[in-house]
Amino acid sequence: MTPKIHTRRSVGVVSTQFFHYVNPAKPFRLRVGGELPEFTLAYETYGELNADRSNAVLVYHAMTGSQHAAGINKHVPGVGSRWTKEMHIGWWDGFIGPGKAVDTEKFFVICANYLGGCYGSTGPASINPATGRPWGSAFPVLRFVDIVESQMLLLKHLGIPKLHAVIGGSIGGFLALLTATRYPDFVRIVVPIATGLETTIYQRIINFEQITAIESDPNFKGGDYYDGPYPEVGLALARRIAHKTFVSLEDLKERARDEVVSHKPPYGWYEMNHPVESYMYHQGQKFVRRFDANSYLRIVDAWQLV
Amino acid sequence: MTPKIHTRRSVGVVSTQFFHYVNPAKPFRLRVGGELPEFTLAYETYGELNADRSNAVLVYHAMTGSQHAAGINKHVPGVGSRWTKEMHIGWWDGFIGPGKAVDTEKFFVICANYLGGCYGSTGPASINPATGRPWGSAFPVLRFVDIVESQMLLLKHLGIPKLHAVIGGSIGGFLALLTATRYPDFVRIVVPIATGLETTIYQRIINFEQITAIESDPNFKGGDYYDGPYPEVGLALARRIAHKTFVSLEDLKERARDEVVSHKPPYGWYEMNHPVESYMYHQGQKFVRRFDANSYLRIVDAWQLV
Repeated sequence: MTPKIHTRRSVGVVSTQFFHYVNPAKPFRLRVGGELPEFTLAYETYGELNADRSNAVLVYHAMTGSQHAAGINKHVPGVGSRWTKEMHIGWWDGFIGPGKAVDTEKFFVICANYLGGCYGSTGPASINPATGRPWGSAFPVLRFVDIVESQMLLLKHLGIPKLHAVIGGSIGGFLALLTATRYPDFVRIVVPIATGLETTIYQRIINFEQITAIESDPNFKGGDYYDGPYPEVGLALARRIAHKTFVSLEDLKERARDEVVSHKPPYGWYEMNHPVESYMYHQGQKFVRRFDANSYLRIVDAWQLV
Repeated sequence: MTPKIHTRRSVGVVSTQFFHYVNPAKPFRLRVGGELPEFTLAYETYGELNADRSNAVLVYHAMTGSQHAAGINKHVPGVGSRWTKEMHIGWWDGFIGPGKAVDTEKFFVICANYLGGCYGSTGPASINPATGRPWGSAFPVLRFVDIVESQMLLLKHLGIPKLHAVIGGSIGGFLALLTATRYPDFVRIVVPIATGLETTIYQRIINFEQITAIESDPNFKGGDYYDGPYPEVGLALARRIAHKTFVSLEDLKERARDEVVSHKPPYGWYEMNHPVESYMYHQGQKFVRRFDANSYLRIVDAWQLV
């Protein structure tokens, strides 16, 4: 008997949608303080909302993920030339689609880029309407509850009275749990993956390492770097510090096997001498082309409070 | 019956000794290339060499350790004002002494600072006789075999025909194994502790993170920073990256329990918010007062080749 999962079926070509929150009488207030006079969330949906609006599934992406969870989208916004071809396919295309684990023949799936993110949602790289320049260091302090609340406004906008399920991995799992605990009557099923109820000591330590790596890059300039060179060395180091923790080391060794070791010292005197160094180096370099350093810092900051 | 180990007995006050290698006809050639026209090793000894010279025990310190393994020494050289009071007591005083695990009533114990180190042995911070200025980036590339060979010259100078034992933890363990495999007839017992025969993938990755942290500190200037500000942010980050791997996380959490969280952001925008961050931050800050960034980089470089 053939299994019923059709791994080769895709939701097809998808496009980004935008939810703009503008309400001069009621700016979006953030947990710690400060407010956004308006904000945008970039999101995608897959499948159809049924007549009784009971089949909505909210998927939270992981820290550096995007709203592009399934199908093919060649025009994910917000990252400009930093977007790489391999990201045209949604990051969870293996799980979301017709007949897949999150079956789009049954469910209406929504995935939105975090508030504070850099894929079309309002974040530190967005223009601050008060100044006409990127928010940078002036972007309000973000907490996970703000990300959840902004997505609740999106769900309201989409006319979702209750979620069939909320799903997320890593930070996405924290957000799924937070959504369910804040709104227990609004969520039927919670699927937290590779996550927990609090930040572990190890995670807290490596998050702090990443914060240091970004903030001490001289190009970071406290977060106001949009007119100057990009703090790519610090951000790439942060990414490498994280990368080893979400890929199995055996797998990483295997993937690095065919890596050609560059003989050009990337940071100064030290020459790489092992494929795994070269592999990690390129993971960092690839990442900085697609992610904003301020978004990274602000999300890690929120993470440290869980 | 009382156990025979008298943990409160100490070898007492000790002082640093120096071995100067100078042989114009035969400079010390390093494995990769380059040579040192002369070099110094700073070392300490405990106990007495017996009449038939059969009771010598060589102890290799770990990466950032020193020759000051036991007893009390208020004048360990080479680190100037960076030396902290808590380091007056030898780093392995609990194990080396009369009646202790490495019994100085039986053995003649030798511990020398690595070639390339910063506690009185010749290293990148030492004066290059050819220029009258610190070696810095011009210090020859170091391999573990060079550290072993320099200590073999010291043992020869001390008139040791054969070691009763060679002991070392972490990198010291690599060096102990290397000594024993290069000179099997010279070593009776090998005690490698918390070490292995090769660098693991995880270690290789975090070593590379540390290299990046040091080299990308703008004060590092490729290793020629002795006239300017110290690359302390990069070195402190490197130390923190390492620190979490040689202390149990449970222990670390416990030690951090009473840490006061500073509200002054140490690197920019991000404010620490948990005792473990503050604890790790202070581990980094303490370390940069006592260790040279070039020594750190050069030893990690050698480590990557194991």
